[in-house]
Formats: sequence, structure tokens, C-alpha cells
Amino acid sequence: MSQNGNGFHSNGNGFHRGSDSNAPVRVAVVGLGYWGPNLVRNLYELPEARVAAVCDADTNRLDTIQSRYPAIPGTTSFDSLLEDPTVDAIAIATPVSTHAPLCAKALEAGKHVFVEKPLAATSEEAEALLALAAANDLVLMPGHTFLYSPPVVTIRDLIANGVLGDIYFISTSRVNLGLHQADVSVAWDLGPHDFSILRYWLEETPSHVTALSRGCVIPHIPDVTFINLEFESGAIAHVELSWLSPSKLRRTTIVGSEKMVVYDDTSNEPVRVFDSGVNLPNPESFGEYRLTYRTGDIVSPHIAASEPLFLELGDFCRAINGGETPRSSAELGLEVVRMIEAVDASLADDGSRTEVAANVPA
Amino acid sequence: MSQNGNGFHSNGNGFHRGSDSNAPVRVAVVGLGYWGPNLVRNLYELPEARVAAVCDADTNRLDTIQSRYPAIPGTTSFDSLLEDPTVDAIAIATPVSTHAPLCAKALEAGKHVFVEKPLAATSEEAEALLALAAANDLVLMPGHTFLYSPPVVTIRDLIANGVLGDIYFISTSRVNLGLHQADVSVAWDLGPHDFSILRYWLEETPSHVTALSRGCVIPHIPDVTFINLEFESGAIAHVELSWLSPSKLRRTTIVGSEKMVVYDDTSNEPVRVFDSGVNLPNPESFGEYRLTYRTGDIVSPHIAASEPLFLELGDFCRAINGGETPRSSAELGLEVVRMIEAVDASLADDGSRTEVAANVPA
Amino acid sequence: MSQNGNGFHSNGNGFHRGSDSNAPVRVAVVGLGYWGPNLVRNLYELPEARVAAVCDADTNRLDTIQSRYPAIPGTTSFDSLLEDPTVDAIAIATPVSTHAPLCAKALEAGKHVFVEKPLAATSEEAEALLALAAANDLVLMPGHTFLYSPPVVTIRDLIANGVLGDIYFISTSRVNLGLHQADVSVAWDLGPHDFSILRYWLEETPSHVTALSRGCVIPHIPDVTFINLEFESGAIAHVELSWLSPSKLRRTTIVGSEKMVVYDDTSNEPVRVFDSGVNLPNPESFGEYRLTYRTGDIVSPHIAASEPLFLELGDFCRAINGGETPRSSAELGLEVVRMIEAVDASLADDGSRTEVAANVPA
Amino acid sequence: MSQNGNGFHSNGNGFHRGSDSNAPVRVAVVGLGYWGPNLVRNLYELPEARVAAVCDADTNRLDTIQSRYPAIPGTTSFDSLLEDPTVDAIAIATPVSTHAPLCAKALEAGKHVFVEKPLAATSEEAEALLALAAANDLVLMPGHTFLYSPPVVTIRDLIANGVLGDIYFISTSRVNLGLHQADVSVAWDLGPHDFSILRYWLEETPSHVTALSRGCVIPHIPDVTFINLEFESGAIAHVELSWLSPSKLRRTTIVGSEKMVVYDDTSNEPVRVFDSGVNLPNPESFGEYRLTYRTGDIVSPHIAASEPLFLELGDFCRAINGGETPRSSAELGLEVVRMIEAVDASLADDGSRTEVAANVPA
Repeated sequence: MSQNGNGFHSNGNGFHRGSDSNAPVRVAVVGLGYWGPNLVRNLYELPEARVAAVCDADTNRLDTIQSRYPAIPGTTSFDSLLEDPTVDAIAIATPVSTHAPLCAKALEAGKHVFVEKPLAATSEEAEALLALAAANDLVLMPGHTFLYSPPVVTIRDLIANGVLGDIYFISTSRVNLGLHQADVSVAWDLGPHDFSILRYWLEETPSHVTALSRGCVIPHIPDVTFINLEFESGAIAHVELSWLSPSKLRRTTIVGSEKMVVYDDTSNEPVRVFDSGVNLPNPESFGEYRLTYRTGDIVSPHIAASEPLFLELGDFCRAINGGETPRSSAELGLEVVRMIEAVDASLADDGSRTEVAANVPA
Repeated sequence: MSQNGNGFHSNGNGFHRGSDSNAPVRVAVVGLGYWGPNLVRNLYELPEARVAAVCDADTNRLDTIQSRYPAIPGTTSFDSLLEDPTVDAIAIATPVSTHAPLCAKALEAGKHVFVEKPLAATSEEAEALLALAAANDLVLMPGHTFLYSPPVVTIRDLIANGVLGDIYFISTSRVNLGLHQADVSVAWDLGPHDFSILRYWLEETPSHVTALSRGCVIPHIPDVTFINLEFESGAIAHVELSWLSPSKLRRTTIVGSEKMVVYDDTSNEPVRVFDSGVNLPNPESFGEYRLTYRTGDIVSPHIAASEPLFLELGDFCRAINGGETPRSSAELGLEVVRMIEAVDASLADDGSRTEVAANVPA
Repeated sequence: MSQNGNGFHSNGNGFHRGSDSNAPVRVAVVGLGYWGPNLVRNLYELPEARVAAVCDADTNRLDTIQSRYPAIPGTTSFDSLLEDPTVDAIAIATPVSTHAPLCAKALEAGKHVFVEKPLAATSEEAEALLALAAANDLVLMPGHTFLYSPPVVTIRDLIANGVLGDIYFISTSRVNLGLHQADVSVAWDLGPHDFSILRYWLEETPSHVTALSRGCVIPHIPDVTFINLEFESGAIAHVELSWLSPSKLRRTTIVGSEKMVVYDDTSNEPVRVFDSGVNLPNPESFGEYRLTYRTGDIVSPHIAASEPLFLELGDFCRAINGGETPRSSAELGLEVVRMIEAVDASLADDGSRTEVAANVPA
Repeated sequence: MSQNGNGFHSNGNGFHRGSDSNAPVRVAVVGLGYWGPNLVRNLYELPEARVAAVCDADTNRLDTIQSRYPAIPGTTSFDSLLEDPTVDAIAIATPVSTHAPLCAKALEAGKHVFVEKPLAATSEEAEALLALAAANDLVLMPGHTFLYSPPVVTIRDLIANGVLGDIYFISTSRVNLGLHQADVSVAWDLGPHDFSILRYWLEETPSHVTALSRGCVIPHIPDVTFINLEFESGAIAHVELSWLSPSKLRRTTIVGSEKMVVYDDTSNEPVRVFDSGVNLPNPESFGEYRLTYRTGDIVSPHIAASEPLFLELGDFCRAINGGETPRSSAELGLEVVRMIEAVDASLADDGSRTEVAANVPA
């Protein structure tokens, strides 16, 4: 396992702000639509941060947020943030197509960047951003918030500590009667959640992807996608994504050689650990094997309630001040983009089995 | 819709037993392992049938069944049944590899045949059996019991009556901590259930199949399989099959343009109809579409409890006496075998997208 | 049924504010602890209201609320509100023991009053407040918020429209691992919810109460109470209240002669209507009766999401401007207090069956 | 704790069958209606028993059971069983009103007796039977089957081992859309289950009972009853019984000072143990107490599937052969009858608090 537990190599030197590394990070928030106000609220409450400014082209949105936070300066000019020496970092919650240009400008201006998932609209864009961040010794962090969700972290620990044994397979459904996006498919909208979680849990990017999709309501915008994933370790996974479902499902089953887990993000008991399995006493004699089935206790570990976004933004600030690679790293963000691109490539080729682009070299 | 509601053409002449078509059908049951005794019990209670004999190579099994039904003759000789003129039909519940030879012998001897699913181990075998049955004007019926399950029939009616609108997609999970089979994969063991149900509901065989599988416990016997299915109507489906699961799931979601259904075979309310959907007011102007989401009542229709196997065997007897093609027809059984073969072919070719063999010509 | 559908007589003349009856009601909110800020937030958004001032003895609380609503004046002086001619009404969210004196002062000063449940700490206090409100022609409204909860209203309509038939009995559990109150029992804390709902649904106050209680954690503060209720109509009810429970339950079963309802306030489907029942074909011949059981469809009606407190405060403002008795009327609030007093009386007399004090005369 | 763990004193000498105490007990089964065939089936499979005969006044029922068990002699004469020296014991599954006379005759004839719950229709009858059994040194065992249900035993062990701490209270619902009995109330029909379980868990009979009931469908046969119970240890309990309910509920909550348990007999996870509770750090200073709430893991212990009736009848045979008092002892059966009588007495006195008759002296 690598240094930071993400399977990625930390650069080690990194992102220090010199003499002032314990001061709160001054963050400007750009994009005040659906998600941006959540960034403002959490940064406002985070001891490691200050909200330096809020920015949106729409003055109504600026007014709304400023009526709640009168002390925070507002602007419609993104460029003015770049020139402001009191702004340490920029948090971006704008449409996906704008991620790359805004992030690039910010990095070029010497600002650390937090950007909502997905990191960029193409892997080429994402790679360029990574290079830019590295060249300028700045933090670039995509907002894969689920990596900070306590149930996801609990399961990650169960896997990393070997409690589940070898991971045989993972099956997950993320469906609801949801908000169709005008510009992206359901795989771009919901896929980053599951792809980032799988990457975090398995410390491995899938090698191959096969996908089947349909645009049920709007023919050119896929609103249901079934995705099969293969990993070099032997693990396989299925991901079902849909905006068309009678009820909200956030259900993931993780089957290991020792134990099994059901993760249901809509439940009061989001993680349930089943001490169940199958034993094959004499693997060499398949012909006359006698399997024994084990069904033991089921445990719902208590999981502390914490807001993942708060933890995530704290990780961002500590990455800036302390030089640690954040859990939701730019490398992970890039690989998520590659996975979605592989889904798109499979779909474009009639659902053929498609290789995921090579991992970031260590 | 076709004559018999299965999408298959009924031969019309068929299987009459001449002058005695209202007399109970005399059925011999072959194979008294796990399932055979259920056939005996239901045939014993069915007004349209008589259990003419029971047959198994294992005399202990014969003794057990005869201690409960002392009046039923028992034999270890399959051939003796063929020669017995008082035996009208043979019901076969033996291992899959024996289906084809036993069925062929029975048909050649002029006996109607009921055989447990799958109909045969290969589509070639199945095709030969269909030809033999047609040539001898005999009923050949595979035991796709779920086609007689009241919830499955309820949903079939909802679809056939247009209540659900166009079927956008179906997603189904049939998993449990189950009995690994020594000789067949999970797709051959559990797949016939879902494939027969999908065929019955959609009146359509999928055109293409893509599958991903793993032998988690015994490497050469796949115990988890993710299957994507495409239909020419545009419908798509996902089928998850597994013997390795923390808990039993029998959950199917059917998403139509008008309503959605959740079918949970483990629930007291196996069918739930959701009056939910998405409306696209002006389909021609995708650019500026405004979707409206509809969430209405949820109804769990009352579903009468009846034993599907009892209904199925009744259908078998009526097919013999009345000449109607049974709902679980030989043609449907053949197509189910073709679907499983397509799954195997996809798996053998690294999960490539695979065409399902051509449908039976009308 | 009475004029306002509550079983209470509306005074008819009532609470007009003369020439200005369509102007927003200017409400001062007193008590900014746990619940008061919710009053402020909803009044702030309500077209029919203006928040005239906020008041709390604790300046920290004032500062917190004013940092969010800078335009709202704050004061630590309750009396200053009474003298302020621009204040039409006072909304009180202070501890129960202060309800009566604060309400009385406000009514004497000519202010309409909204007060959190329960209306007062004794029925004598409550009666005095009703008299004072009547004498001054002012609205006095206790905050029985559940009467504005959409599921509760849906069930009320099912009952009032006869869909459920005669109400045989109601059984309800309101339990959780909850916040023990320092000064009141669980019956005073949680009981007003169920007692107000029962009063609203049945249009009837119970005639007799029997209670059993225990102070499990703190001996002199009952934290679990089992309450049996009898109504003159023949209906009976059981109410279980507890702060000690492994999981949160808000489950009510209503059994009528025609249909049955389960109301689960923690569920996505809070109201489920069961078309189930028992028929007694020949009631006169009990000796040889043959009951038939009916189990039909189950329907979860779609229930619009609305914040009950918002609807409740709207009702308060309309009562002031329009003269209608609010649904959560002072009379209902008084009867709720009488029910809780009857519980206390039963407990004080070793759980004896206790009469509820006479209803308010019409 | 007493010798046999039931809180009752074992007589110590007891029920030996002299020299032949390891031979199977020869049991005649009387009453072949709904439940009797289950007794026959389990006794037939029990190594410690032989079915000596079956007896019913209705020859159709005799024929039915004998067609399944041709080797078992059948008779319509109860008296003939009494005279048969090869009959060691008689198992009675007849209507409640016949329990006392049939049991008395059997005991007088020197036969051990197993009788379906409740033991008798009145406590006087039950006491007379106990005296008769003691005088003749015979086993008299009522069929409180739930005492052999694995979930009930699991909870009993959790309580007896102190895992739950002091038992604060128990709340239980046993309701369904059920079979109204022609001759008895719901309390006599379903109450024995909960009363025997409570007696087994708490090793204590309640001191006082308060009940509220209604005959909804047939006025003189109560089909819903709410029962409050007080125990001298301080524990309290509520028992809800009903034949009129939208869905089947078998849910019991046990709240202890250390842990809490939910027992749901309809669930795949019938026992769930919640490591939840409230701590009162300084009990002496109630005025300024600070409670801390604890919410820990939830565990569903694996519970082996076994048929309670099989275990119960084994206990009966071992009591005959080994002299141990069975878990479902006559004393417990007597106290259950006293509890139901107290419920009836409370109902007859308008729901007054009623003392349960004195316990059996040790």
C-alpha cells in the first residue's frame, strides 16, 4: 500500500504556504447555484478556513448569499479573485464544461483549487490541470465528497484491515426519480460517486468496462446505464445508475471471502456487516467438493454523524497548509474521468468491452 | 399479439387424446430427488391428473415417497414406464444432462413430456426435442414455474394492458447465499427463472447479451454473473445472479413510460405499482426542455395465494387434453436455452457483446 | 359535525383587525431556544406575516438570530413588546411553566397570542387564558403543529369522509432514544402530539384514561408511559410514549370497520391504506357466525411535502385577519391539557381509571 | 434463581418410569383438528417418543391422519386409551373447555399429560390438575411452545446473563387480521403466548393488571385488548393483542438499563440487540443532572432454525424419563391462566387495576 492510502504516491514536498502554514486558508467560492452555497456554509464554519469572497455572474445569487453572510464580499468578476493577493484558494462549483478553463486560470494565478466533481470534462483537460498544479506546487482537489462519508470510510477500513478478506465482487445501485441534466448523461452525473468510492475501497482502477445505456425520456441523453467493471486483482463490479426509478436506492453489496457488507446510504443503519460465507474445505478436489455455508451474526456498527463536505473541505485546507495529498486527490479525480470516458467509449462502440486508459504512473 | 399470448404460434391441431380428452391424465414422475416429490404432491392433488407411477434408480427415494403415497406404484426402470400403455405422460425431474435423452425416449414412446427447466443442456438438443414432439403430435413442456406465479402474471397483465406504457428497462437481482451446483454455473441454475419471465413479459427474446462472471469459491464454476440484455423494441435489461450474497434478494424493477413496478418475491406485498414518471412536454425542442416529474400513489394490488407448480401442472394436463399450447411452451424453453448459451458465449469471449441465436420462425 | 370541523363552535364575530384585515400580521417571537428560531424562519417567509421583533433574556441567542436576520429588531424586554403598538401578535416559545403568565400579559396588552404546546401547565391556567382571549376578542392559539402535518390531514379526511367506516380503535407509539426533559414527564412532552391528533381525527375527547408509567433513568421523571383511552363513541385507543427506545418509532394504526390505516411518520410512505376487514354476514346469529376476511389492495396515497409549521402560522395569521377559529384552537389546547392531567391523576392513583374533565360547553 | 431456571421449585423425586427410563415414551394424541396433526408429526420424528395411537371423535380426521401414518392405530374412544397399558402419556389438542376433564381422566388413569395452552379454562381447574399430577407423581405439561422458540430462548439468556441489565420495561404487539374464535376472547387466544414469554424472561408473575378491550366485530367477543402489567421488581409491560390489524405484527421491545432488544418474530433477523442507553452520571444531584446518550453497534445474533414444537415435545419426554420439571411447567401454565383471569376481572370491572392471584407457594 502506498503512503497516503490512496494508492497514489505523495509528492512529499508539496504545497506549503511557508511561514504562515497554520493560518486559516482564505477561500473564494465561485458558482452559487445548487451546490456552491453548501461550500460557503461549510467553509464559513470551518476553523481552518475563511470565506474570502463569493463570486457568481448572477447578481441575484450574490444577493441571496450575502443576505445570509453580510460580511463576505461578493463579486461578479472571476478575474478579480485571481488578482486578489488575500485569496489563497478558489473553490469552484460551476458547470462541468467550465471546470478546466477556470481551474487553469486559478492555478496559473497561483491559487490552490478545489473543484466540484468531475474534475474536468475530458481526461486530456484533467491531465493538463494536474501538470499545471504540479508545476506551480499547488493543491488541486476534486470534490469527491463520498470519500469523506463516514459509512464509506468505515467500509474502506474493513477492507484495508482485511476484515472482509479478498473482495470477490461489488454490486451497486444509485437510482432515483431524479433530476435529468440538460448537458450530461447519468454516467457523468452519478458515476463519479461510485467510481471514486470503488477506487478508494479497492485501491485499484478497473482495467475494463462494458456498458449498456438508454435515453428513455430524451433519446440523446442516457438516463439509465448498466456498467460492468473488471479489475486486475480479479474483483468484478456492477454499477447501475438511473434517473428513472420508482424509489431512491443507494445500495451497495460488497462480497468478500471472509465477510459481506451491505451499504445503504438511505438507511439509519448504513453499514451492515454479515459474517457469512462459503468454505471449500479441499480446494484441490473440485470433483467431490463439499461446500459449507456459514451464516453468523450481523452487525450494524455505530457510525458517527458528520457532514462529509465539512470533512472534505478540512482536508483541502490541511493539504494546503500541511503538504499532504488530500484523500480526494487530483490523481483519483483524473482516473474517475478516465473511467467515465471508458463508459462512453463502450457505449459508442455498441457496448463493447473497453480498456480503461493507463493509470497515472507512480 | 399472437394467438396464445406468448408470442408463439400455436400449431392449432395439436395434442388431442381423441375420445377421452376429459379423463385425468396419467402421469409418471421420474426423479425423486429435491424437486420430484413436489411434482408428485401436486399431481396427486390435481383433479386433471393421476400419478400413474414414480420412478427413481435409488430405491430409498422410492420407499420414502411410497410410504407417503402407498397406492402409487414405484419402479427403478424408466423403460418400463415407456412400455406401460396406461401412462399418458412423463414428468421428468432429473439432472439437466439427462433431460434430452430421457425426453427423447419418452416422446418416441408416444408419451407427453413435462421436464424441469432448463429444457435441455444445449439448444441443439432442445431443437431436436421440439422436432420430435411436433412429429409425434405430443406436448413437450419445460417447467418454467415462475410463469405461473401470481405476481409474475399480475405484472404480465399490467404490461399487456398498457398500464405501464412502453417498457423502458428492467433490472433484476436474484441472489442469495445459495447452494452451489457441482455441475452448472449460476447462469444455468438461476438464469432460466429470469429469462423465462422476461420472455413472458416482453413477448420478445433479447437480440444481444453481454456478461461478466466470476467463480469466487470454485474458480471454474461461475457463482456470480452480471448480464446486460438488449431487445429490438429498445428495452434493455440487467440481470444479476449470484449464490454469494449476504441476504436473499428477489427484486425486479420494471420502468415503463407510464408507471413503474417493483416486484419483490420475498415480500408480503410482492407487486408495488408506482404512478411515477417523467414528462417531456415538447419533445421536439430538446435544447430547452422542461421535464416535469410525477409522483403519485403507490398501490400494492392484492394477489391471491396459489401454488405456481399446481397451476403449471394443470396447464400441462389441459394442453394434453385440450390442444392449447401451454404458457411454458417448448418454444419458450428453447429460447431460454439460447439466452443462456449466449451468456456462455459472451463469457467465453471475454465478455464481448453476443447475438442471441435466431428466434424460432413463426 | 360542527362549523369549523373541529367539533368546536366558532364565535363567529371574532378577531377582526378592522379596516386593515389584509395587511401582514406583525408578530414578535419570544424565546429563541430550540424551537423559537423555527418560528422566526417560517414567519419570515410567510406572506401573511412580518417578524416585528425577537425577544430573549439571553443576548447570545439574540445575537445568533440577528446575525441571520439583521433587519429584525431584538430585545431582552418582554414588556417592551407589550407597549409597542406596531406589534399585533406575540408568538411564545418559552418553557411550559411560563406560558400562562406570558400569554396573560400579552392578551391583557391587546396582543393576539400563539404559544407552543402545551397551552399551559394546568387546565385552570388554560381556562383563564381562554376567558381572557374571549373577553378581549383576541386569537389565542396553541402550537399543535401535527394538526397541519399533511399525513395527519390526509387521515383526518379519510375518517371524515367515511372511507374508514366506524373507527374501532387506534394504537400509537411515539418512542425514541430521546431527550429527557428536566422538568416534565414524557406524557407532558410527547403526549400533546398524540392527544391533539386523536382529538382532531375523532372530533371527540376521551371520557376515561388509564395510565402506567415508570421513571427508568430518573425515578421522579416518568420516561415511559402506557396510556389507555376510552371514547363515548365506543372507540378505544392506546398511546405508548417513551424517551427510552432502541429506535425511533412514530407508528399509528387506525382500524375502522371499512378500512385500516398505518401512519408512520418516519417513512417515505407515511400513510398506507389497507382495504382489509372482517365481515359478519348475519350479526343476529352470533352462535353460528361465519366471518369472512377481506384483504384487498394497499394504497400509499401521494402526500405533498409541506412544512407543517408554515401552514400552522399561516392559519394563525388568517385567524387574526379573517376571524375564523384556527384548526389548532384554544379549546382543543385546553382539552389536551385536561387529557394530560387525567393521565397524571391516573398515575397518582396507582393507575386507576380516571375521568377526563368535562368538555368545554358549546 | 431456582433450580430449573423457571423460578419454580422442582419436586426432585418426580416422574421416573422406573427401570425403563430410556425407552421411548409411548404417546397417544387426542384431537386431530388444526394443531393435533403437528403433534403427531413431531412425535413421529422424535427419537424419545412413539406415537401409540391417535384419537378423535371425527372419523374423517382419523382417516386423514392414518392415510399419512398407516402404522399408527386410531380410535374414536378416549377411554380406550386410558385402559391401554402400552400408552405412557396422552397429548391433548382439543378445545379449551375440555382440557380439564380430559386431563383429569388421563392423570387418574396414571398417564402423563401434555395439553395445549391454556392449561385449563379457569385457575381452579388448573390447580386441581396440578394437585392430581402431584398426587400421582405424573408429568403435567401445558404446551407453551414459544418457550422453546430459539429467539425467545436467546433473549432469555441475554436477560439471565445480565447483558441487558435491569429490565426497565417491555412492550409487545401480537396482532394480525386473524381468525376470530367463536368461544374465547383474543386475550385467551393470544395472551398465553406473551404471558408465558414474560414469565419465562422475567422469572416473575405480574402483581397487577389493567386492561381495555373491545369486541369490534362481534360485540361480546373482545377482538382487541390493551393490557398494562406491573411487576414487583419495578418492571412494567404493555401487551397489545388483536385479531384486527392491517398487517401481522409480532414485535416486542425489551428495554434494559444496559442494552435494548427488538424481537420481531416475522423477521429474518428476529433478535436485534442495541447497545444503546442513557447514563445518569450523578444520580444524587437530580436538579442539575446531565444525561449522556449512548448509541453503539446493533447486533443481530445468528439464531439456529429449529422447530419449537419438536424441542417442546422432547422436553416432555425427558421430563417423563428423567424427572426434570419441563420448562413449560404446570406451575407456569397455572400462572398464565391466573394472568388471563386477572385481565378478565379488570375488564369486568370497567378496566380497574386488578391484582393477579397469589403465586404458587414454593
